[in-house]
Amino acid sequence: MHQLSRAAENLIGQPMFAFLSQVKALERSGKKIIHFEIGDPHFETPPQVVAAAKKSLDNGETHYTDSMGLWDLRQEIRHYAEKEWGFMPDVGQVLVSPANALIDFTIRTLVNPGEEIIYPDPGFPTYSAVISYAGMRGVPVPILEENNFRMRAHDVKEKMSSKTRLIIINSPNNPTGSIMSEEDTREIYALAKRYNCSILTDEVYRSLSEMKPFSVSALDHCHERTIILYSFSKIFAMSGWRLGFAIAPQSIATKLGLMLETILSCVPVFTQRGGIAALHVKGKELTTRYQELKRRKDALITGLNTLAGVRCIYPDGAFYAFANIRGTGLSSAAFRDLMLDQAGVSVLDGTAFGKQGEGFARLSYASATVPMIEEAIKKMSKVLGASAKNKVPLFSPRSGIIP
Amino acid sequence: MHQLSRAAENLIGQPMFAFLSQVKALERSGKKIIHFEIGDPHFETPPQVVAAAKKSLDNGETHYTDSMGLWDLRQEIRHYAEKEWGFMPDVGQVLVSPANALIDFTIRTLVNPGEEIIYPDPGFPTYSAVISYAGMRGVPVPILEENNFRMRAHDVKEKMSSKTRLIIINSPNNPTGSIMSEEDTREIYALAKRYNCSILTDEVYRSLSEMKPFSVSALDHCHERTIILYSFSKIFAMSGWRLGFAIAPQSIATKLGLMLETILSCVPVFTQRGGIAALHVKGKELTTRYQELKRRKDALITGLNTLAGVRCIYPDGAFYAFANIRGTGLSSAAFRDLMLDQAGVSVLDGTAFGKQGEGFARLSYASATVPMIEEAIKKMSKVLGASAKNKVPLFSPRSGIIP
Repeated sequence: MHQLSRAAENLIGQPMFAFLSQVKALERSGKKIIHFEIGDPHFETPPQVVAAAKKSLDNGETHYTDSMGLWDLRQEIRHYAEKEWGFMPDVGQVLVSPANALIDFTIRTLVNPGEEIIYPDPGFPTYSAVISYAGMRGVPVPILEENNFRMRAHDVKEKMSSKTRLIIINSPNNPTGSIMSEEDTREIYALAKRYNCSILTDEVYRSLSEMKPFSVSALDHCHERTIILYSFSKIFAMSGWRLGFAIAPQSIATKLGLMLETILSCVPVFTQRGGIAALHVKGKELTTRYQELKRRKDALITGLNTLAGVRCIYPDGAFYAFANIRGTGLSSAAFRDLMLDQAGVSVLDGTAFGKQGEGFARLSYASATVPMIEEAIKKMSKVLGASAKNKVPLFSPRSGIIP
Repeated sequence: MHQLSRAAENLIGQPMFAFLSQVKALERSGKKIIHFEIGDPHFETPPQVVAAAKKSLDNGETHYTDSMGLWDLRQEIRHYAEKEWGFMPDVGQVLVSPANALIDFTIRTLVNPGEEIIYPDPGFPTYSAVISYAGMRGVPVPILEENNFRMRAHDVKEKMSSKTRLIIINSPNNPTGSIMSEEDTREIYALAKRYNCSILTDEVYRSLSEMKPFSVSALDHCHERTIILYSFSKIFAMSGWRLGFAIAPQSIATKLGLMLETILSCVPVFTQRGGIAALHVKGKELTTRYQELKRRKDALITGLNTLAGVRCIYPDGAFYAFANIRGTGLSSAAFRDLMLDQAGVSVLDGTAFGKQGEGFARLSYASATVPMIEEAIKKMSKVLGASAKNKVPLFSPRSGIIP
C-alpha cells in the first residue's frame, strides 16, 4: 500500500463539507431539507461584480499575473482599508489571496511544527484543521456561553507560554456571532507584544454586525504583529469566488506572497476584477441585505428560544445562531442527526467547531428566509416536543441571554 | 522583529515571477521587449470556454461546491482520460484542483520532512520550491544535453534509497521539451515498485508534442502508485484560470482532496464550467495553434543555431527551447541580463530550473510569433557577434543535435 505522510494522516478537512455532501445526497433522494448548515449567503453576487468578471474574460485577461495580486486591486484595498479600519496600509502590506488559504499560509509562515497557536474553541474549523495537519500545537481558548461567547484576555493569558507564536482571534466569531470587547482586544495585543508573537485577526464577518467591532489592527496598523484576514465571500455573497486579502507587516506579506506563488502561482485576473467592482459596491446597495439578515436573526433566535430544551443568546454579528441544546438531553451530533432525519432541518453540531461546542448547534441564517425559518422552527418543535421535560437551565439567565 | 518559521525562511517561490515583474517594470519605463521568458500561450482561451464561465456566472453559480470538484467535470475528466490515456478512472480517483497546487499537495501528502524526492534537474521550479520550504530532501537527477535532455532510468536508479518516497517525472519536460523513452519510463516504474514509492507524472505538456509520450499511468491505471498531474493552462491557453486535475489511487486522491478542502475549500464553479467546455473543444480547433507553434519552433531553433556561441537541440515537445550558451563564455544569468539589457529580448537563465541549467537559457515560444522570433534573433546576433570567437563545442554533435 501507499505510504502516506504524517501530514496526510492528520488531515481532517472541514467537516461541514462532508456533512453538506450527505445533505445533498438526501436531497437528491427526494427529501426536502431546510438549510442552516453552511455559512454561504444565498444572496446573489452583486451584478456589477459579475459584469466586471465577464468583461475581464471578454478582454482575454486569462493569463498569469503578479503573485501578490493585481496592482489595481491592491490599490483599491488600500483605500477600502482606510475607510474600514481607519488607516491606509502600504501596498507592500497587501496580498490578494483566497481567504481560507491565508489561514494555512499564515500559520505555516509564522509557526514551526511543535510550536503553539492560541485559537478560539468553538472556532472556524480551518484553524484546527491546519494546525493538525501541519503539526503545530493547538492551544484552544474556551469561548463560553456564560461570557456571551466573547473571547476574553484573561483566558488567553492563562494559555500563553514561551512557545506561543500566534494568537488567532475572530470577531465577529464563527460559530457564535460574538464580538470581542475593545478592552479584551487591547489586552490580548499587549500579551502578544510581551511574548513577541503575532496576531491573526480573522475579520471576514466584520461588516455583518450592527456594531462595528474594534479591530486589533488599530493598535499597530499591521506594521508590527497584526495580520488582518478579510474575505469577499460573506459581505459580497462571493463565497464561490475564493477571493480575499491579507494586510500584514510587509516582511510577513512578502512571505505569504511567496507561499501563494509556490502553491497557487497567482489568483485569476478575472476574479480580481470582480473584487475591484465589489469594493465599489455602495453600502446602501447592501443595506436591504443587512435588513433581511436582521429579520431572519430575530425570527430564528425568537423561534429557537421557544423550543423545548433549547435556548439561544442573541448574537452580536455574523449570520450564525449558536444554540444551547443541552436541555434536550441530546449530544450535539445526536441533535444534528435527529433534526436532519426527523425534521428535515440541517444544522451543524457545535462539536464541528471544537470540543467546547458540545451541547450546542450552529444554525446559519445566511440561506434561510423568514418563512423557511418559521417552518423549520415548527418542524423542530414537533420533534422536540417530547423532550421538553428535559429543559434544565445550566445557569441563571443573565443580560444578553434571552431566557 | 517577527519570528518566521523555517518554512518561511526556505520559501523561494518561482523565480520566473520575480523576473517577469522586472521585465514588466522595464516595459512600463518604455523599453520594447520581445518575450521568451514565460510559458504562457498568448493564444486566447477558446471562446466556448469563456462563454461557459460567463453563463455560469449569470446563473449565479457563485457559491461553495464539493471540494473534490464538480461532479459533472469529474465525469468529463473520466471520459477525457479514456481518450487521452486509454483507461477510464473511477470518479473517486479524480480530483479537480489548480495543477500547481497539486505538486504541493502531492508532495506533502506522500512525503515526510527529511524523506527523499527524486526530480529532474533542470525541471519545473515548483518541484524544488515545494521540497525546499516543506523540508523534504530533494534528490535532483541530472537531465543532460548529451542524452537529448531525456531523463534516464539509469540515472534515477543511482539516486534511489530506502528514504525515497516519490519520483517526479515530467514528459514532455519543462524547460527542455524532451520526451522520455517508453523503456526508461517502464524501468522507472519498476524501480518505484521495488522501493514502494509513488510517481508523480506531470503531463501538463502532454498534448503539445508531435509524438504522443508514453505515460507511466499505462502501467497501473493510477491504481497503485501513479499520480497524473494535468492542467488546462497550456493546451487550452487557460494559464490564468488556475485549473487542472489529478488522477490518483483513490486513497491518495481522497487525501489530496482533504488538503484542497483545508487550504482552498473548493475550486470556483464557474471556472470548472469553463473546464467542462474545454474538454469538449475539438482537436481540429486546436490544430491551427499546433501548426503555428511548430512554425515558431522551427524558426526559433534554426535561428538560435546561427548565433555565435549558442546551439540548441530540436525539442520533442512543449513550447520551450533550451539553448546551450556556453560558447558565449557567459554564465546563464549574465546571458539573460545581457539579452534583456542589450537586445531587448527576455529569456530565462537555465539555472532558474536547477543547477544543471548552468550554461543554458530557456526560450518559450508560446508568446512570440515568427516575425518576433526573427527580429529577436537579429537583435541577439548583433549583441553576440563579438563573442562569436568564443564558440567552442563542448562535445561532438550527435543525432538530434543540430550542429
